[in-house]
Amino acid sequence: MILKSLREEVLEANLELVRRGLVMYTFGNASGISRAEGLVAIKPSGVPYETMKLEDLVVVDLEGKPVEGSLRPSSDLPTHLVLYKSFAGIGGVAHTHSSAATAWAQAQKEIPCFGTTHADYFRGPVPVTKPLSPGEIRTNYEANTGHAIVRRFKKLDPLQVPAVLVAGHAPFCWGKSPSEAAHIAVILEEIAAMAFQTITANPKARPISKHLHEKHFLRKHGSAAYYGQVK
Amino acid sequence: MILKSLREEVLEANLELVRRGLVMYTFGNASGISRAEGLVAIKPSGVPYETMKLEDLVVVDLEGKPVEGSLRPSSDLPTHLVLYKSFAGIGGVAHTHSSAATAWAQAQKEIPCFGTTHADYFRGPVPVTKPLSPGEIRTNYEANTGHAIVRRFKKLDPLQVPAVLVAGHAPFCWGKSPSEAAHIAVILEEIAAMAFQTITANPKARPISKHLHEKHFLRKHGSAAYYGQVK
Amino acid sequence: MILKSLREEVLEANLELVRRGLVMYTFGNASGISRAEGLVAIKPSGVPYETMKLEDLVVVDLEGKPVEGSLRPSSDLPTHLVLYKSFAGIGGVAHTHSSAATAWAQAQKEIPCFGTTHADYFRGPVPVTKPLSPGEIRTNYEANTGHAIVRRFKKLDPLQVPAVLVAGHAPFCWGKSPSEAAHIAVILEEIAAMAFQTITANPKARPISKHLHEKHFLRKHGSAAYYGQVK
Amino acid sequence: MILKSLREEVLEANLELVRRGLVMYTFGNASGISRAEGLVAIKPSGVPYETMKLEDLVVVDLEGKPVEGSLRPSSDLPTHLVLYKSFAGIGGVAHTHSSAATAWAQAQKEIPCFGTTHADYFRGPVPVTKPLSPGEIRTNYEANTGHAIVRRFKKLDPLQVPAVLVAGHAPFCWGKSPSEAAHIAVILEEIAAMAFQTITANPKARPISKHLHEKHFLRKHGSAAYYGQVK
Repeated sequence: MILKSLREEVLEANLELVRRGLVMYTFGNASGISRAEGLVAIKPSGVPYETMKLEDLVVVDLEGKPVEGSLRPSSDLPTHLVLYKSFAGIGGVAHTHSSAATAWAQAQKEIPCFGTTHADYFRGPVPVTKPLSPGEIRTNYEANTGHAIVRRFKKLDPLQVPAVLVAGHAPFCWGKSPSEAAHIAVILEEIAAMAFQTITANPKARPISKHLHEKHFLRKHGSAAYYGQVK
Repeated sequence: MILKSLREEVLEANLELVRRGLVMYTFGNASGISRAEGLVAIKPSGVPYETMKLEDLVVVDLEGKPVEGSLRPSSDLPTHLVLYKSFAGIGGVAHTHSSAATAWAQAQKEIPCFGTTHADYFRGPVPVTKPLSPGEIRTNYEANTGHAIVRRFKKLDPLQVPAVLVAGHAPFCWGKSPSEAAHIAVILEEIAAMAFQTITANPKARPISKHLHEKHFLRKHGSAAYYGQVK
Repeated sequence: MILKSLREEVLEANLELVRRGLVMYTFGNASGISRAEGLVAIKPSGVPYETMKLEDLVVVDLEGKPVEGSLRPSSDLPTHLVLYKSFAGIGGVAHTHSSAATAWAQAQKEIPCFGTTHADYFRGPVPVTKPLSPGEIRTNYEANTGHAIVRRFKKLDPLQVPAVLVAGHAPFCWGKSPSEAAHIAVILEEIAAMAFQTITANPKARPISKHLHEKHFLRKHGSAAYYGQVK
Repeated sequence: MILKSLREEVLEANLELVRRGLVMYTFGNASGISRAEGLVAIKPSGVPYETMKLEDLVVVDLEGKPVEGSLRPSSDLPTHLVLYKSFAGIGGVAHTHSSAATAWAQAQKEIPCFGTTHADYFRGPVPVTKPLSPGEIRTNYEANTGHAIVRRFKKLDPLQVPAVLVAGHAPFCWGKSPSEAAHIAVILEEIAAMAFQTITANPKARPISKHLHEKHFLRKHGSAAYYGQVK
């Protein structure tokens, strides 16, 4: 079995989505990439999490050609591949239909940064894609979903805004590793849920100031970060 | 004991409703049909799930005549029987008062298809019945509930729209088997919950396009489906 | 120890409130009455549920005079006593600050009967009391809470409407036994939660018809009931 | 190891936040003070709760100088220290990003006292701070957060109003001990959640009367309290 340790990370990221209540049945999928070998390991399509084993994961190259594994990969694989090819710095992708984040995607509204929980992870609102055209839906739908995300990030740094809401669909999240991608999926769900309650308590709620937003993001990221233990 | 394997499926479908938090106390009921023998197995009325055994299930014919079992069947049995007689392709029915789906039924509003989670399972909105007339409530209330559902499906294919909201009451779900019916009940609850949050985030939220809806439904259903493993 | 079996029922009713997530820390209280002896057993004040034992329950007469038990009774005892003295048919009372039901009490709005789940248990909306006057709050506050409930039930049958929302406070529930009272507390919380979602999905939602309401209530209560097993 | 019993209390308070679902991953922090020695024990920054040990807690003096422990303290330590220096009567502080309370902080709205659950713990609304100025954010941000809280309490008694919502951030809670601070964090989350539902059920909901508010607060606090067991 090739890429054993990547497979372990990917399996663990998928199971984290289950443990945190972000996926049910066979919903959702997480993947990871070995940049050195140009290979991606991803969850198989429609297989229950309860019985998923290391060897059930599917390894493909960046064009989606199967390299190892007898099962079909997640049907969202082409979206993952576009993200890996366009966002050079990412090492993992996680996709869920988690309740609150999916509802914002369905509402086709970006999630404003209402507080420091959000600012700790995202250097801006959580963006939403434009809807796909009928032609983009008809042919290469999943790859086109990836392209719509990439277009939305033309002026955004995917490592500073590690998730997107696909309009009418659900979130895609990413990070330097599969486990970071899954972690972002969990945080995003929490941020999305709190954003609903925020606009319920105050329909005119405003995002926090640029100053507070930057302060919190940079407290945790970049060379001047001072959250956590020195590494 | 006749129909042992159907009973096992029906018991399991009932317990799935409990495990997923869709029913409490003795709420809800699931049934299954043997088309070959024209017999239906259903949960008994008002018996706790914790202690329910295979032999507690009640087997009746399509007119509701008891064939095996000493307990009274669920009081909603006549609704199930109308569905089995009118929807030739279904093999199981599940009825719950799950929180979000019931609230839409109480609101007497169909659930619009706000996203692909919904589109993966329903080829259209989740419909709501018309309220029953006083006369329909007075006599044969449960059978008339079934008839109201069937009238609502005059122009709908029950295998492509596998659930309904009974106005002022709660959902009825179905599928090719008891376990599929229970599965739909779980999915419907999730879809209903996300639909609330969607209209909270955006009171003017619009359904997804017909193109996206069809794409997702057909990705999972019909001859061109490509979700899951080849069977 | 006197009234052992009543104590067991009362302890079990209190623990049911914990198991169903209706109370936290030392919130809430349930009691039961022996009509034959004119004695009430109730949860002690401020004692954690985790360690509560049969002998911790406090037995008092209908004037609140301690008969057995070394702990102080729940501070809401005078409310319970007024209910027992005024509602001859009840055998148990349960009081919680469960989230959704308390929110309706805080909103000082009765819960309309939006569906059959409600109609199965309450023959009308769940009523809300009038606020107490400053004088009623100052002296004998807890007994006056009971009197406000009784005044609200002047034209209502407490066995057909087994709960009330005390304005700005929380629900009191009752039944023929302590376990029935706890059961109603659980159901009321579910009904209250669904009612929120109902008005979210449809701010103009209307109660179900009198016909449907009566049908469901009488399907489960009274001489013509046909829900559950014959007893 | 110094301050062993304070460390035990502080560790226990931190774990209570986890058990009650108020924090996830390494979110949140609780601390305690030994007034006699002028030393504070606090959670280390960014360390998982699952593996946190007594010796991982960090002991500092009131200027934040490390006294014992090899890990970095929570980055919110300066906020805790300002609170200990300004609020002479408190012995513990707990900070979470719990969902509903954080949403009110994000909405920058105080939580009105809609009911007796709130009145039992807070002698007034739960206040919200003013946003920090750009300069206060740039330098000594965490200490300035503490100063903003203290300014907000100019006319409030912190022992009668044991929590605050920091605008655009989240709640800080306190009490006579670390465990009381954690207890208040749990109660505040519940109160905040019920307040959302209250304004959903009735957008014009009004706070309870001063009379009822005082009655409930004084039933549990002060010399005339009569809730719980005599101590």
